[in-house]
Amino acid sequence: MLDPGRRWREHGEKPDFAGLLSWSGVPYGEDPADLEGTDVVIVGAPSDDLVSDEPGARLGPRAIRAAGGIVGPRLGSSVDPFESLRLLDYGDAAVTPGDPATSLEAIGALVAEVVSAGAIPLTLGGDHSITGPALRALAATHGPLGLIHFDTHTDTGEGVFGVRPSHGTVMHELVAEGSVDPRRYVQIGLHGYWPGPRELEWQRELGITSLTMDDIDALGLPVVIDRAVRVAAGRPVYVSVDIDVVDPSSAPGTGTPEPGGMLPRELLRAVGRLGREIDLAGADVVEVIPRTVGSADPTALLADRVLRELVQGIAERRVPRTD
Amino acid sequence: MLDPGRRWREHGEKPDFAGLLSWSGVPYGEDPADLEGTDVVIVGAPSDDLVSDEPGARLGPRAIRAAGGIVGPRLGSSVDPFESLRLLDYGDAAVTPGDPATSLEAIGALVAEVVSAGAIPLTLGGDHSITGPALRALAATHGPLGLIHFDTHTDTGEGVFGVRPSHGTVMHELVAEGSVDPRRYVQIGLHGYWPGPRELEWQRELGITSLTMDDIDALGLPVVIDRAVRVAAGRPVYVSVDIDVVDPSSAPGTGTPEPGGMLPRELLRAVGRLGREIDLAGADVVEVIPRTVGSADPTALLADRVLRELVQGIAERRVPRTD
Amino acid sequence: MLDPGRRWREHGEKPDFAGLLSWSGVPYGEDPADLEGTDVVIVGAPSDDLVSDEPGARLGPRAIRAAGGIVGPRLGSSVDPFESLRLLDYGDAAVTPGDPATSLEAIGALVAEVVSAGAIPLTLGGDHSITGPALRALAATHGPLGLIHFDTHTDTGEGVFGVRPSHGTVMHELVAEGSVDPRRYVQIGLHGYWPGPRELEWQRELGITSLTMDDIDALGLPVVIDRAVRVAAGRPVYVSVDIDVVDPSSAPGTGTPEPGGMLPRELLRAVGRLGREIDLAGADVVEVIPRTVGSADPTALLADRVLRELVQGIAERRVPRTD
Amino acid sequence: MLDPGRRWREHGEKPDFAGLLSWSGVPYGEDPADLEGTDVVIVGAPSDDLVSDEPGARLGPRAIRAAGGIVGPRLGSSVDPFESLRLLDYGDAAVTPGDPATSLEAIGALVAEVVSAGAIPLTLGGDHSITGPALRALAATHGPLGLIHFDTHTDTGEGVFGVRPSHGTVMHELVAEGSVDPRRYVQIGLHGYWPGPRELEWQRELGITSLTMDDIDALGLPVVIDRAVRVAAGRPVYVSVDIDVVDPSSAPGTGTPEPGGMLPRELLRAVGRLGREIDLAGADVVEVIPRTVGSADPTALLADRVLRELVQGIAERRVPRTD
Amino acid sequence: MLDPGRRWREHGEKPDFAGLLSWSGVPYGEDPADLEGTDVVIVGAPSDDLVSDEPGARLGPRAIRAAGGIVGPRLGSSVDPFESLRLLDYGDAAVTPGDPATSLEAIGALVAEVVSAGAIPLTLGGDHSITGPALRALAATHGPLGLIHFDTHTDTGEGVFGVRPSHGTVMHELVAEGSVDPRRYVQIGLHGYWPGPRELEWQRELGITSLTMDDIDALGLPVVIDRAVRVAAGRPVYVSVDIDVVDPSSAPGTGTPEPGGMLPRELLRAVGRLGREIDLAGADVVEVIPRTVGSADPTALLADRVLRELVQGIAERRVPRTD
Amino acid sequence: MLDPGRRWREHGEKPDFAGLLSWSGVPYGEDPADLEGTDVVIVGAPSDDLVSDEPGARLGPRAIRAAGGIVGPRLGSSVDPFESLRLLDYGDAAVTPGDPATSLEAIGALVAEVVSAGAIPLTLGGDHSITGPALRALAATHGPLGLIHFDTHTDTGEGVFGVRPSHGTVMHELVAEGSVDPRRYVQIGLHGYWPGPRELEWQRELGITSLTMDDIDALGLPVVIDRAVRVAAGRPVYVSVDIDVVDPSSAPGTGTPEPGGMLPRELLRAVGRLGREIDLAGADVVEVIPRTVGSADPTALLADRVLRELVQGIAERRVPRTD
Repeated sequence: MLDPGRRWREHGEKPDFAGLLSWSGVPYGEDPADLEGTDVVIVGAPSDDLVSDEPGARLGPRAIRAAGGIVGPRLGSSVDPFESLRLLDYGDAAVTPGDPATSLEAIGALVAEVVSAGAIPLTLGGDHSITGPALRALAATHGPLGLIHFDTHTDTGEGVFGVRPSHGTVMHELVAEGSVDPRRYVQIGLHGYWPGPRELEWQRELGITSLTMDDIDALGLPVVIDRAVRVAAGRPVYVSVDIDVVDPSSAPGTGTPEPGGMLPRELLRAVGRLGREIDLAGADVVEVIPRTVGSADPTALLADRVLRELVQGIAERRVPRTD
Repeated sequence: MLDPGRRWREHGEKPDFAGLLSWSGVPYGEDPADLEGTDVVIVGAPSDDLVSDEPGARLGPRAIRAAGGIVGPRLGSSVDPFESLRLLDYGDAAVTPGDPATSLEAIGALVAEVVSAGAIPLTLGGDHSITGPALRALAATHGPLGLIHFDTHTDTGEGVFGVRPSHGTVMHELVAEGSVDPRRYVQIGLHGYWPGPRELEWQRELGITSLTMDDIDALGLPVVIDRAVRVAAGRPVYVSVDIDVVDPSSAPGTGTPEPGGMLPRELLRAVGRLGREIDLAGADVVEVIPRTVGSADPTALLADRVLRELVQGIAERRVPRTD
Repeated sequence: MLDPGRRWREHGEKPDFAGLLSWSGVPYGEDPADLEGTDVVIVGAPSDDLVSDEPGARLGPRAIRAAGGIVGPRLGSSVDPFESLRLLDYGDAAVTPGDPATSLEAIGALVAEVVSAGAIPLTLGGDHSITGPALRALAATHGPLGLIHFDTHTDTGEGVFGVRPSHGTVMHELVAEGSVDPRRYVQIGLHGYWPGPRELEWQRELGITSLTMDDIDALGLPVVIDRAVRVAAGRPVYVSVDIDVVDPSSAPGTGTPEPGGMLPRELLRAVGRLGREIDLAGADVVEVIPRTVGSADPTALLADRVLRELVQGIAERRVPRTD
Repeated sequence: MLDPGRRWREHGEKPDFAGLLSWSGVPYGEDPADLEGTDVVIVGAPSDDLVSDEPGARLGPRAIRAAGGIVGPRLGSSVDPFESLRLLDYGDAAVTPGDPATSLEAIGALVAEVVSAGAIPLTLGGDHSITGPALRALAATHGPLGLIHFDTHTDTGEGVFGVRPSHGTVMHELVAEGSVDPRRYVQIGLHGYWPGPRELEWQRELGITSLTMDDIDALGLPVVIDRAVRVAAGRPVYVSVDIDVVDPSSAPGTGTPEPGGMLPRELLRAVGRLGREIDLAGADVVEVIPRTVGSADPTALLADRVLRELVQGIAERRVPRTD
Repeated sequence: MLDPGRRWREHGEKPDFAGLLSWSGVPYGEDPADLEGTDVVIVGAPSDDLVSDEPGARLGPRAIRAAGGIVGPRLGSSVDPFESLRLLDYGDAAVTPGDPATSLEAIGALVAEVVSAGAIPLTLGGDHSITGPALRALAATHGPLGLIHFDTHTDTGEGVFGVRPSHGTVMHELVAEGSVDPRRYVQIGLHGYWPGPRELEWQRELGITSLTMDDIDALGLPVVIDRAVRVAAGRPVYVSVDIDVVDPSSAPGTGTPEPGGMLPRELLRAVGRLGREIDLAGADVVEVIPRTVGSADPTALLADRVLRELVQGIAERRVPRTD
Repeated sequence: MLDPGRRWREHGEKPDFAGLLSWSGVPYGEDPADLEGTDVVIVGAPSDDLVSDEPGARLGPRAIRAAGGIVGPRLGSSVDPFESLRLLDYGDAAVTPGDPATSLEAIGALVAEVVSAGAIPLTLGGDHSITGPALRALAATHGPLGLIHFDTHTDTGEGVFGVRPSHGTVMHELVAEGSVDPRRYVQIGLHGYWPGPRELEWQRELGITSLTMDDIDALGLPVVIDRAVRVAAGRPVYVSVDIDVVDPSSAPGTGTPEPGGMLPRELLRAVGRLGREIDLAGADVVEVIPRTVGSADPTALLADRVLRELVQGIAERRVPRTD
C-alpha cells in the first residue's frame, strides 16, 4: 500500500497534478491484505465495450482520479471523512478491451473482495453495464438491494440494438434476476425519448418508482429526494449515478447526452443527502468521457464530487456533525 | 427517397453514427415527388455569409442531423410522432458560399416547394438571415404570420455594420415588408446590450411584444409562454429559435453569444408547449456552430431537441395524448 | 492614446475581431497623461505564477478584451455608459513571468497611477494574487476598504502548500495588514471543500461575513445581495470576482474549478446591482483561463460581462435611469 | 440512387459542407440494383468494438466522407476518374454496436454484394478488424489475394489481450485461413515496438515481406514500392491502409499511434503508384478517429486522399494518361 | 504611435502574452503620420467572406500577432532587422463583415497609404482574396509586378461556385487586369486536385511558371527556388504565401487544406532566401484560421515566421551579413 | 513497490488506459529500498514555474506515463529491455507549485537517491529548469559531465526577462558552475531567433559545439550524430531533450514552440543511437504540455518514445543484439 501524500508530508500538501494517481490522494493498494480495516474503497471499472453510441468511458476512472480537489470536510461540516473513515483506492479491475464478458467478471470479482472485507465499494465507470457485476457482488451478501438510480434513461431495455448485456439493459437484468427489489427501486431525473411505452409498462407493473425531470420541476428537488429515500429505505441501498442525468451543457463528457437534465448543484445536493439518510451498501458513477487534460475536466470533476458528497454523508452518518 | 433505417430493419435499430445522415433517421429525398403526402419536412440552410462576428453556422445542418437520439415518443407521451406523422428530410438548399443573395434565393425556393406540398417546413440554419426566405415562403401562402422568436437579440436593426440583409436585420425586413404581423410578433429571452434605444423604440411603436430574461426571472417561464401564445395565436404562427437565447455555457457553439441566457430545460419546455398550443406554420433553429465531432455536440444536440419538441407537439395537437 | 473605432467611423462600427485590441473597443493609452479626466480605467494583470493547480490565467486579460460585444447601454436602460463615462484601457502592467514579486509590484504601481488620476480601476487577472496590489493601491488612498468577494474559496489561507503570497492567501494578507475592514468584508458563493475549520474560525472571529451557495439556495439571491450591500456599505467598497464562483460547466476556463457554483445569470444580476448600490472604489475579475480562440470563449465572455455590468451600474449611479 | 450534386447543377458546384453526405459527392444508393454497371464502390464499415486502446473509429466513415475536396483529376493528369469511372457510395454496413461478430458479418455481406456486381470495393473503417470480412468477400471470388499493407503494426497476433478476432489479429486470420497468399503479402512502414519476436518469426517462416520505416529511410520510398509491387503482383491484390502508418503528428486521429511514421506526402505518393501498377481487387483505409468538426480534419482528409489516389490510379490504368 | 515594449524597458523584455498586441511587439500606430520613415509596415486584413469552404481566417491577423517569439536576428545572422529596419504595425483595415466589396476597398486604401510612404507592406490575411487590393495598390506605383506565389491551388479560376472575386479567382483577376506580369509569375507547391485542365491551359498559354510538389520532390527545393528567383527577378516582386501550401498536419488551421504539402522547414528556408535575393515590393500570408488560444497555435506561428524570414531577408539585402 | 501488470498476469496484458499509472507499466515504488538493484529509474519533475511563455508542463509527467505503448523490444531487436533491465518508476518529486526553489531542491534530492543506488535516472519534466538539479545530482558523483542537448534554444541566457534560474538559463548555470564540461557539450537542432549574438559568443569561447537545423539539412543527421557522439564521448554523458526541438506541427504541446524543427523520425533515430553509443549517466525529456486526454497525445507520446529509445539503447549496450 502506498500513501501518495507521504513525500509531501514535511513541507505541505500534495498538489493534484503530482504524485501517484489515487482517488482524492487516499492510500492506494492492490493487495487483498490492504483491504483490511477499510471503511470505503474505490474500485475502477474502465470498460466501455457495451455502449450504443460514443465510446470513451474507459478513460473515466483515471480522469475522475485526476479531478482536482483539496482533502478535507465539506465546507461548514465538522466531520472530515478523510480523517474519520479509512479510505482506500484499490485500483482498477483487470478489464480486457474487446472482451466485455471477461471485463465484467473481473469487475465483479474485485468488488466482491471489497464486500468480503466489510467495506463499502464505490465504483468508477466505465459504461453503465459495470453496475451489473458491481451491484451483484453486494446482492450476493445483502440479498435484494434497494436502488436509487440517477439517469436520463431507465436502462431497463431487454436488449439495445439486440445486444444484452448492454449499458441500456443493466437495470432490467438486475431486477429480473432478483438482485434489485423493484419496490425499493427509484429512478430520478428521467427525461428525453427513451425508453418507450413497453419498457415503461414493464417498470410500472413491477412497482418501480420513476421520478422525472418534470417531477423535479413540479415538486421541487427536496420533495423528490424525500420520496426516494422513503421508497428505498429500510434495508441496504445501492446508489448508481449515470452522469448523463445532468444536462449536457454541464456534463458534456458522456456518450448518450440528453438536453434538459439536472444542474450540477441539484445533483450534488441530492447525493449529499443520500449518504446521510440511507444505509448505503455501495455506489457507482458511470458514463464519464473526459474531454480535457488535467484536473479541471467538468464532467470528471462533477463525478468526483458525487463520490465526495457520498463519502461525506457516510462519515456524517457514522459520526454526526457537531456544528 | 431513401429510408436510412431499412438496412437495420432485420436485426434492430440504426445507431446514430452509421447510415445515411438524415434528421432523426427519417426518410431522405431530394425529388419534389417525395414531398407528396408529408406532414413535416426538414430543410437544411447551410449559409452563414451574413454574420457580424464568428462564422461557422454553415456547418449547423449536418451537425444537427448528426445529433444522437433514439426515435420514439417523448418520455411519458402516448403519441409517437415518428409513427403518426409522415416526416421527410428534404436535404439542403443549393447554397453558394460567398454569394448570400443566391443562397437566400435557393433557400426560399426549396421551402416554397415544401409549402406547396402542404407540409410544415422546419429549417436548419445557417445564420439568422435564412429566416427571411424561409418565412417569406410561408407568408406568400398564409399572409402575414404571427411570430414567436427566441433570441438574445431582436434582429431588428435597419443595418448591421451598414449591411442589409444581415443576420441582425432579418426581423426588421420581415415586419417592414408585411410578412410578419407586428402585433402578433413576440420576442422571448432578450438580454445583453443590443439593440439600442432606436430599434427598441421602433418595435414598441409597431406593437411588437418583447419578453426579456428579466421578465422570465420575474414572472416565471409559464406565465411568459402563456402570454406569448395569447399574443401570437389566432392565425398561423412561425417559430424562430436563435440558439444564442440559451446561455453560452449551455450553447457554446454560436457566433454572437451573450451570457445570462436561458437554461436548456427552460427552452425545451417552452417550445414543447408551442407545438401543442399554436397553429404552427413553420419553424427554424439557427446560429448553431458545432464544436465537437460525433453525435454529442451540446449546441447541435439542443437544436435537434428543439425540433423534436416541436414535432412532438405537432403530433399531439393532431392526435391528442391518451395518457 | 488610440481610439480603435476611429477607422470605422465613416462606414459603421468596428467588428469585435478586427482593430486594436482594447476592452470593449474603448480608447487605449499607456501614457500617464492619458489618464487625465477618465472615470473608469481598465488595467491588465497577466500574472499567474502563484496558483496551486492549473496555470494559464496569464492569458486572461487578452481573452477578456477579445470577448465579443457591441457597445451601448444594457438592454432597456436609458443610460449608455460608453457615452456618459470617460473610459480608458490603460494596457497591461509590466509583469515578469517567473518572478511574481516583481509582477505584483508592477501591477500595484500601475493601479496606483489610475487611483491618483481619480478614476476607478477595473483590473483583469491573472490569478487571484493580483487583488493584493490592486486593492492595496486603493487602500493607500481610501483607508480600509469594504470588500464584496465572489468566490468558491475564501482565499484566506495563511499559506497554500506553504507558499505566501499565493492566490489562496490574498484575502488573509489584505485583512491582516488592514487594507480590508473585516466587518465590511462579505464573501458570496462559497462551496466545496476549502478552506478548513481553522481558516473559517479565523474569519468568524474577525467578523467576516460568509454567504454560501447553500445560503443563496435557501434565501434567494436578492436577499443575499441585500445583505451584502448592507454589510459592506457606508464607505468605498472593492468588488473582487473570482470567476470560479460560477459552476465549472458555465465557466470551464479556470484553474481550481468546483462544481456546485452560481449560474452566469445569477452572477450578472448580482454584480449589476452592486455598481448601482455601492460606492465602488475599484474591482477585478480573476482566474480566467481562455480555452477557445476568438470572441466567444464562454469564461472570458462572462468575465467581460461582469465588468460591463459594473460599468453600467457606475454610470447609472451617476446619471440615474429615466426609463 | 441520389446524386448529391444535382441541385447545384444549374448554378455551379456543390460545396463540401452542404448536401447529401456521400464520398466525394458521388451518387449514393442503398439498393443492390444501384450497383449495376459500377466500377468502384465505397462501403462504410463504422465498427470499432475490437480495439485495444482508444475507441472512436466508428466515426471514421462519416468523417472521411465529409473531408473537403473538389471533384476532378489529380493535378496535371489528363484522366478524370469522376468522368471515366462509374462511382457509387453504397452507404454503411448495418453494424451493431457492442456486437462485433454481427457487425463483421454485415460488412462482409455488403462487400460481397459489391464484388458480385463486378465492382472494386473501397471500404472505410472502422478498426482494422473490418479488413477481415472485406477481404474475405473478395477471396471467395478471386482465391488467395496478394496484399499490400501499410501499417505501424503487423496485425499478425494470434490474440491481443487474449482476444481474437481483434484489430491486431486480422492479418494472422487472413493468412492462416488462406485468404491472403503470404508470399504475395507485403507490409510497408512497420516501426515501433509491436509485435514481438514470436509473431515476426511466424511471418518470416511463411514468406511474408516486411518493409520497415528503417528500410524506407535506407533505400528510399521508390525502391520500397518497386519491391512491393514486384512481390504482390501477378494476380489480384488488396491494399489495406492503416492510417497509423503515418506519423501521429500528421495523423493524430487514430487509436494506437506510434511516433516515427511516414509523412502524408510519402503515403500519397506510394498509394498513387499502386492504383496504376497493380491489379487492384479492393482496398480499405482504417483506424481513423476524427477530432475536428467540418471538412478539414487532418486524419480524415488524409484517409480521403488515400482513396482518391487509388481511384485516380484505377482510372489511369484503364484509360492511360495522354499528357 | 505606441511602443508596446516601453513599459518593460527598465526591467527586461515584454513577454508575448502581455502588453499591446502588435506584430512582434514593434511600434503600433494608426495615424498616417506614423508611416513616415518606416521601411516595412504590417497591415491586417481580417476578411474571409469569399471562401468556398471553412471560414475563420478573419481571426488570422490577431492570431499571427499573438504568435510567440523573441525579437532579434535569425540564429547565426549578424543582422538584426529589429534594429536595422524601421518597422511599424499599422493595424487592421476597416473591414465590414458580410460586405466583402467594402472590405477589399478598405484594405486597398490602407496598403496604398503604406506604399505612398515608401515602405514595404506585409499584409496579414484574411482569405486569399485580400491579395487583390494589396497587390493592386503596389502595381499602381510599380507597374506589373513579378509574383512568387506559394499555394496548394493556383487561384486562377474565372469563378468559384460562380462567384468572382473569390479566394480562388484572385490570381486570374490580377493577371487579366495587368497587375501581375504572367511571364514573371511563379507558383510553388501546387498539389492535389484543383484547378482542372482549363485553368492550367490558360496559365500555360500566358507563360505562368508552375512548380509542383512533384517538382520539389524531383528537383530538390534549392533548384526550385533558384528557378523561381530567376523567372521573377529583374523588377519588383510580390510574394504571396497561402499557408495551405504546407501540409495540413503542419498547418491544420486553414480552410481548404490539401494533404501532401510542404514541411514548415522547407517553406521557411524558401522564403528566407527570397527576402535576400529578390527586390521585394510587398508580401502577404493568408488563409490562417487559428485553433489554439495563446501564442503557440502552430499555423499562426508558422505564418508569423514566414514574415520574420522575409523581414530578416530584407534587412540582410540592405545591410549584408558580416558573419 | 507495486507491479501494475500483476492483476492482468493470468489473462493477458494490461491495457494502457487501465491500472496504476507508471511509466510503460513498470513497477512503481516510492520507498528508497525499492531502488535497490535497479538499472534505470524514472523520476517525475512536474514543475513549470520558471517558463517565459505558456505554462502547463507540470502536466507532463502524468501525460508521458499515460502514453500508449506495448512493452517489448524495439521492432527487429533481439534485446528486450523490459526483460534485461530492472526498471522502476520512482514517482514524482515533492514539488511545491508557486515555489520553484523548493521544487528544484526536491527534484535534486530524489534524483540523488537514484544516483546513490547506482541506477541511471530518466527524469520527466516539467520545464527545462529541472535539468539543473537532475544533472547536478549526477555531477556530484561523476564530476563534470558531457552533455548532448536537443533543443530549439540554447538555454544559455544569463537571465530571461531578468529571471535566473529559469528554463532559459539552465545550461548557462550548469556550465558556469562546472557541472557540465563545455568541451564535451553538444547542442543539436538549434533554429529560430534565440539566443542572440552575446550568448552565442559566450558559447563559442567556451568551446561548446552547436549543431543547427541548417547543419542537419546540410550534412545529414547521421553525420551530425556521429560528430555529437565523438565530441561528448570518453566519460559519462547526460542527454537532455527539450521536446521543442521537434517542429511544432509534430510536437504542438510545448510552451515556446519554434517552426522549422526536426521530424519525430529524426529525433527518435538520433536518441536511439545515443543509448547504444555513449556512456549514458542520465537523461531527461522536458517542456511537454499535453493537449489531449488519453494515451494518444502526440507530444507526450513522442516524449515517451524518446525515453524508450534510450532504454532500448542502454539494454543493447549491455547485452548486444544477436540479430
